[in-house]
Amino acid sequence: METCLFESIYIKQFPFWEQLSDSDRETMCRSSVMVKYPKGTTIHDGSECTGIIIVRSGCLRVYMLSDEGKEITLYRLYPGDICILSASCVLNSITFDVFVDAEEESECCIVGGCAFADISERVPQVKIFALETTVSRFSDVMWVMQQILFMSMDRRLAIFLLDECAKNGEDTIKLTHEQIARYMGSAREVVSRMLKYFASEGIVEVSRKGVLILDKAKLRKLSM
Amino acid sequence: METCLFESIYIKQFPFWEQLSDSDRETMCRSSVMVKYPKGTTIHDGSECTGIIIVRSGCLRVYMLSDEGKEITLYRLYPGDICILSASCVLNSITFDVFVDAEEESECCIVGGCAFADISERVPQVKIFALETTVSRFSDVMWVMQQILFMSMDRRLAIFLLDECAKNGEDTIKLTHEQIARYMGSAREVVSRMLKYFASEGIVEVSRKGVLILDKAKLRKLSM
Repeated sequence: METCLFESIYIKQFPFWEQLSDSDRETMCRSSVMVKYPKGTTIHDGSECTGIIIVRSGCLRVYMLSDEGKEITLYRLYPGDICILSASCVLNSITFDVFVDAEEESECCIVGGCAFADISERVPQVKIFALETTVSRFSDVMWVMQQILFMSMDRRLAIFLLDECAKNGEDTIKLTHEQIARYMGSAREVVSRMLKYFASEGIVEVSRKGVLILDKAKLRKLSM
Repeated sequence: METCLFESIYIKQFPFWEQLSDSDRETMCRSSVMVKYPKGTTIHDGSECTGIIIVRSGCLRVYMLSDEGKEITLYRLYPGDICILSASCVLNSITFDVFVDAEEESECCIVGGCAFADISERVPQVKIFALETTVSRFSDVMWVMQQILFMSMDRRLAIFLLDECAKNGEDTIKLTHEQIARYMGSAREVVSRMLKYFASEGIVEVSRKGVLILDKAKLRKLSM
């Protein structure tokens, strides 16, 4: 049976799986698809009910977008993570739109929003799971907000560079100033100015290849 | 019986009330208190599990606070509104702290966090209610974030002044520039500069009494 592939995933991902009836399990499996997204694809653009996304491989970026095209990254999703905000039909109390991009080539399992919503209305455990997953993302978003609102720019940039460094296992961050600014929800000029300051302090070296970190200890001190 | 007072409130406020057992209802009533907070009181300071707050009269302000004392208002609660974020023991997935102040003299009904948490673990409807209330606040917070990140300062200030005006039913906003900046999560200098610009455009008049709105139509245009 074709649905077996999903069943083995859902047993691990959904704490409510054992409590579903056979017919609900079948419905959820039948409304599921496995999709491979090339790097850079927009998976969810805020408007439609794309469905529940389970990341199997790669990395997704969840962000907000203003009318003028300004972005702010809310959080990233890695293998095993689940995205509920991409299924607006499941949670009526969510009145904002987020966007989801594949930051690397990513394989995802998508559960159809309607099927999931229907089951979550009947089975409290499913609803609780969807809500709890969303509320834990609320905490992530508050953290981002705190960073943006309360933290000085040097500290934010230091944290960003260290995070990128750790993520990629390389001392060179191969991003343009424009990209760094986008990811941080800041302006290119602000990032360029701060990088120039970091360079003058011997912390980084800025070239066309990207930002090379020279003094990680100093950067760490700034990030604290 | 003393608990009757709360029962009549909870029937209206809690959609799950009818589904609770008699003993759970009694527990919830017994762990409830009615408190009158003078204007300016800090009701919840982020650290403890204060409990579920139901506003009966007045107005509460929910905000974030940085280590350096910088504030950002997330939303306000009016009579009939319920605050769950003040009961951190109820929702484990909430890992951030908010602060709650009485912005006016406010009467509130507080349900003890432990009693509520205990019942919500046993009765799915109670848990769903707590989570849904929280998720709908998530939407409010995202709106604030969008405002702060994406909106130009003139527009934000125009919206703030109109909101204050509508809230108090007066054309004079009796707040200092410092207070306006705090409420908007901005700096005093930025607010003062923008108010000076508004004054030069004949939109407001700034005096020691506060900000008098002269041209509401122009302000509305700015806010759109």
